[in-house]
Amino acid sequence: MYHAMFGQMKKQLAQMEKWLDAAEAYAKEKSFDPNLYLGFRLAPDQFAFVRQVQISCDTPKLAASRLTGKDAPSHADTETTLAELRTRIRAVIGYLDGFSAKDFDGSDTRTVTQPRWEGKTMSGADYFREHAVPNFFFHLSHVYAILRHNGVNLGKRDYLGQLSLRDPK
Amino acid sequence: MYHAMFGQMKKQLAQMEKWLDAAEAYAKEKSFDPNLYLGFRLAPDQFAFVRQVQISCDTPKLAASRLTGKDAPSHADTETTLAELRTRIRAVIGYLDGFSAKDFDGSDTRTVTQPRWEGKTMSGADYFREHAVPNFFFHLSHVYAILRHNGVNLGKRDYLGQLSLRDPK
Repeated sequence: MYHAMFGQMKKQLAQMEKWLDAAEAYAKEKSFDPNLYLGFRLAPDQFAFVRQVQISCDTPKLAASRLTGKDAPSHADTETTLAELRTRIRAVIGYLDGFSAKDFDGSDTRTVTQPRWEGKTMSGADYFREHAVPNFFFHLSHVYAILRHNGVNLGKRDYLGQLSLRDPK
Repeated sequence: MYHAMFGQMKKQLAQMEKWLDAAEAYAKEKSFDPNLYLGFRLAPDQFAFVRQVQISCDTPKLAASRLTGKDAPSHADTETTLAELRTRIRAVIGYLDGFSAKDFDGSDTRTVTQPRWEGKTMSGADYFREHAVPNFFFHLSHVYAILRHNGVNLGKRDYLGQLSLRDPK
């Protein structure tokens, strides 16, 4: 189940990279610098686009690491261009590619913590369901929403990607 | 796993109802009609707030029904007030309360379809992971984002709700 859900998050990150294509096309059409997107936000006290992309990348990366005990690559949050964000997205997809279903054996009961919890912990199962999954989709959806709010032409198919539909029998 | 994830979606819907409290408080502070929120949207060609709430309710409702074969209550999409949206949210939470883990036995391999797939189907496992979960969080996050965009004071804790944190040993 964990491995399958990380597969889904990987798929969503690949979709996100396609949204950047649409954003660049729109910037070209309207003749503005596509790197301007990085500073766009929906509210003055919400994270800007660049940070929404970074957290969408970090959430599955750190969750896979915490649930398996495997080290995660560090990313410095220094991106200033869409090209650099693409590199980051691809790095995380590559990192997630390295996991097998077996790596998540025991993840349910693994003890997970992070600095801001001040010594408190969660079980792997609770952390994944209550924290990692909701946070991932929150920031992913904000990336999408910031682009849509700024005129980029995206639809639900761009969000979901290809579904595993089977032909009628 | 299904039952636990539906529990999480139920928790998120209960959080959503709290966002409506914050929205009402902000409307009162700024002296505008709180039912105006229902028409707000982030882009002219995106669904308005009312529809985002409705789909956030329908997605787990229909998913639980499709994965178990249990009938779901029908909702007419006629809400014009925050109070009516609250009633809808509570109805869906009540419906989801009626499921036990056992109800989802066999959901992985159940054949799921819906009218817009034109006869094509998905396995329950694929449908849940590729469609239900991403769609639920997409619309939930848009509900949140529309409120934040319009000045309502919400933070990540309001989104996630209480975490199952354990004290240090």
